[in-house]
Amino acid sequence: MKKWFASELRVRYPETDSMKIVYHGNYLPWLEIGRINLVRELGYTYKEMEDKGIYVPVLSLSIQYCSPAYYDDYITVFTRIKECSKVRISFGYQVIRNNNHNIKNPDETIEKSDILALATSDHSWVNQNWKPTRLDREIAELYALLTQHASG
Amino acid sequence: MKKWFASELRVRYPETDSMKIVYHGNYLPWLEIGRINLVRELGYTYKEMEDKGIYVPVLSLSIQYCSPAYYDDYITVFTRIKECSKVRISFGYQVIRNNNHNIKNPDETIEKSDILALATSDHSWVNQNWKPTRLDREIAELYALLTQHASG
Amino acid sequence: MKKWFASELRVRYPETDSMKIVYHGNYLPWLEIGRINLVRELGYTYKEMEDKGIYVPVLSLSIQYCSPAYYDDYITVFTRIKECSKVRISFGYQVIRNNNHNIKNPDETIEKSDILALATSDHSWVNQNWKPTRLDREIAELYALLTQHASG
Amino acid sequence: MKKWFASELRVRYPETDSMKIVYHGNYLPWLEIGRINLVRELGYTYKEMEDKGIYVPVLSLSIQYCSPAYYDDYITVFTRIKECSKVRISFGYQVIRNNNHNIKNPDETIEKSDILALATSDHSWVNQNWKPTRLDREIAELYALLTQHASG
Repeated sequence: MKKWFASELRVRYPETDSMKIVYHGNYLPWLEIGRINLVRELGYTYKEMEDKGIYVPVLSLSIQYCSPAYYDDYITVFTRIKECSKVRISFGYQVIRNNNHNIKNPDETIEKSDILALATSDHSWVNQNWKPTRLDREIAELYALLTQHASG
Repeated sequence: MKKWFASELRVRYPETDSMKIVYHGNYLPWLEIGRINLVRELGYTYKEMEDKGIYVPVLSLSIQYCSPAYYDDYITVFTRIKECSKVRISFGYQVIRNNNHNIKNPDETIEKSDILALATSDHSWVNQNWKPTRLDREIAELYALLTQHASG
Repeated sequence: MKKWFASELRVRYPETDSMKIVYHGNYLPWLEIGRINLVRELGYTYKEMEDKGIYVPVLSLSIQYCSPAYYDDYITVFTRIKECSKVRISFGYQVIRNNNHNIKNPDETIEKSDILALATSDHSWVNQNWKPTRLDREIAELYALLTQHASG
Repeated sequence: MKKWFASELRVRYPETDSMKIVYHGNYLPWLEIGRINLVRELGYTYKEMEDKGIYVPVLSLSIQYCSPAYYDDYITVFTRIKECSKVRISFGYQVIRNNNHNIKNPDETIEKSDILALATSDHSWVNQNWKPTRLDREIAELYALLTQHASG
């Protein structure tokens, strides 16, 4: 069972700020790219989920900034499912500078200065009226896949 | 008849980039604040318009960057209606650094380095299906107000 | 001794996303506005600090999203100093929808749906080379003020 | 001589707004990605240029929005050099929805609804003090390459 899912991106100029590093708030869209790609690799897209009236808002998010990221850096967002229940899901993330494209797994030994951020996020399944909904009833197959891949 | 409408804002840290100036793309939300406030001063809000199913997408936009803006600068976006017809509207903008809060009108003599940007934007009225719609039929009173304030 | 410092802002159109609510990542610039204004009310600006070669990067941040914010909402970011030492500072935040402008203190009874987010952030003092520095040595007066206002 | 340079990207969730389309201001970072990649394909990076103290600020920009872009769309930004002189450079852009990855050149016949935006931008070469500088003197080889690829 695959634990970490990798998403590649590259730092864009407007993501930096006057400190010449990536603005700390701009990591949150990267985390989202990580979890969206994870779901996509399992065969589902956010778009399909939204078309079915299922949304996955962020309930809480916690992030630790370890080293700054710079313009043009190659970034790999490693994402895993920490827990998945019928009503909630949580993700874990490691945001790694991967300029040599050689880091395939964040559990390898990684240069400390390339570990940019560690994060977790908690989400609930809601419907179009922003009311809690049960994923196992709405999209049973996706629920099964997510729980299979949850790494605890 | 009032020609220029003033909107005040202050440069936020994440609006700057590695050049230590405001990223050029971040002026576009400021222009939008300018035209939203103009409409608000006439007694209408975008929210009300959207609730009525009327949207005002940007068809084209042209901007000239004259001087850089810095973090914490006070900015005044002066906005005017250039033209308003039943199916389209265009706005003109002057984005001014106004750290002493003394510039009340962009037609005054302004220090050249405080003239940050000049811009124009063209918009059409569309409905929820993104089809052209006629403002004079949809919200006649707003149409009348906008044409009165158009400064040619 | 004042505990909470209030910063007012208004939701901008591009801060929303396809869910028609404020994108969760766009709260982080608001928190920053909160702590920048707090420091400003104590008589200092980030700009002065940066001119002196003192930066305050975010080490970690934790945020709980309680209710969605919508376009055009008036927001008050209530910010307090949780702890301040010679090498670190942490802030606490309550992000409140304040459309009637009547909430002056987040410890009042507030409609649950107007409590948008609760957050904390930890920061260290660093110099231009991104090395830890001691605020009590660099800007003693600011250090004294911050510790006085820390609310524990 | 190659005329158009292609840059691929995918619409991110926070790039959309409440209209469920990409916010018009969020095209400007895409155009920048286009011109940065063009320069990179010629063998230079913005980073190297900035390390040499050469910056290329935007003097003016003009964009025409033809069709809306949606979350998750694959986008190709086709970029070309319109003109390049010793003191200035201008770029032309076609932003295309390319969900089938089959559009290799914007001069092909393209479904009208997939032509998202057309744009041009003008830039000058400046040094660290924001003073005009001559590219042919600063980086002669890059100047030669850019003029060779200018398509008039």
